[in-house]
Amino acid sequence: MEISIAVAKTNKYASSESGDTLEFVERPNGGVSVVLADGQTSGRGAKSISMMVVRKVISLLAEGVRDGAAARAASDTLYAERNGKVTATLNILSADLQTGTLVITRNNPTPVFIARGDTVECISTVSQSIGTSKNIRPSITEFQLESGITIVIYTDGIKNAGDRTGQAIDLCTLLEALLEDQQPTSQLIADTVLNQAIRLDQGRPNDDMSVVALRVEPEETDQIRRMSLRLPVPSTYSY
Amino acid sequence: MEISIAVAKTNKYASSESGDTLEFVERPNGGVSVVLADGQTSGRGAKSISMMVVRKVISLLAEGVRDGAAARAASDTLYAERNGKVTATLNILSADLQTGTLVITRNNPTPVFIARGDTVECISTVSQSIGTSKNIRPSITEFQLESGITIVIYTDGIKNAGDRTGQAIDLCTLLEALLEDQQPTSQLIADTVLNQAIRLDQGRPNDDMSVVALRVEPEETDQIRRMSLRLPVPSTYSY
Repeated sequence: MEISIAVAKTNKYASSESGDTLEFVERPNGGVSVVLADGQTSGRGAKSISMMVVRKVISLLAEGVRDGAAARAASDTLYAERNGKVTATLNILSADLQTGTLVITRNNPTPVFIARGDTVECISTVSQSIGTSKNIRPSITEFQLESGITIVIYTDGIKNAGDRTGQAIDLCTLLEALLEDQQPTSQLIADTVLNQAIRLDQGRPNDDMSVVALRVEPEETDQIRRMSLRLPVPSTYSY
Repeated sequence: MEISIAVAKTNKYASSESGDTLEFVERPNGGVSVVLADGQTSGRGAKSISMMVVRKVISLLAEGVRDGAAARAASDTLYAERNGKVTATLNILSADLQTGTLVITRNNPTPVFIARGDTVECISTVSQSIGTSKNIRPSITEFQLESGITIVIYTDGIKNAGDRTGQAIDLCTLLEALLEDQQPTSQLIADTVLNQAIRLDQGRPNDDMSVVALRVEPEETDQIRRMSLRLPVPSTYSY
């Protein structure tokens, strides 16, 4: 088996800074976690909030703290630092090789999609954002790590794409079509979702947008871990 | 322009844990850093050292601390925690969009390769590993972020590949051949270097091996950031 995770991410139109922050972190007992936070509003202020949240979570996960406890700690820290006046959404997606499970931790009303083969299920139970009260709990979904599973999580910039024109994104149908037709890579899934959202916002994203796609592939592998990153240098940068 | 970074990483043969730790981290003022540490020896003990070092460095970088200061802090922390008895190598490779530079921070005798076009230069100045004395300084190389630059860094498992059979890896020639022939992706460069090293160790890596390749590509992009990760699930894992 091989776990493949891909991310596609863009900023709100004409904004040089994204309020979404996303990092990968290796789990100390085997496996990997992806941590995605979206700070309230957009631009510089939102970025500093989401970076603080993600930093807190990854430092705890790297020390072996469980995902749920790390999410609670991030909520309490944000509550304490900003007096409960600032909120952020938080998702943690973990492939835990110690327990042999996939763990989805959500403090985000935006749904999460899970597919086994080409049957797509949507987790959209109530879930609170972090930072606004003392006892915020994450909603946690955990299941066996098995080949054929696909998970897609994203920030509300994707969910709300097309709002201005009254066309919402239908992730369930989009994913089913992708999964039926072919064996899409995780990068193709992330790119397709992001591009569809950008299209619904007529090429000018109305908010920061981030998509994470995870796939568990059955293939035997060469036992080589690979990571890659592509960072566009904005043409507005001048040195 | 687009910055493309790729990593390929494998464990010492028959070892379930790699003593090398590598993480990406977003820089708070724009850009990204890759932090790579190799703990003394291999297996569990080495892993806990290299994770501690990388964790220290990424948490400081995420707070806006400069690379050199983060490397010194990691050295001092390791020295304090292990009474100067344990060492680790450390490399930080940063694409800093605030200063418009690439920064290579080395506490590692293993050389670093920099190519402009297809002319490869090797930085192999003396550089101390961290953790063994109080005043360890990193060696820092900084230059303008320009398209056409390729940087390759790696751990000593690559440098020492083939030692048992008396065939050393000739990175300079390998890179020149790769860069002359084609426009290789950063992933192709990392994979080629790693595969060559594994071949020199006759398919059974004698040590943990990690390679990082960075390329600055001239193309105009779609302003989408992408990250991906492939994690093989060892067949020895049973749940």
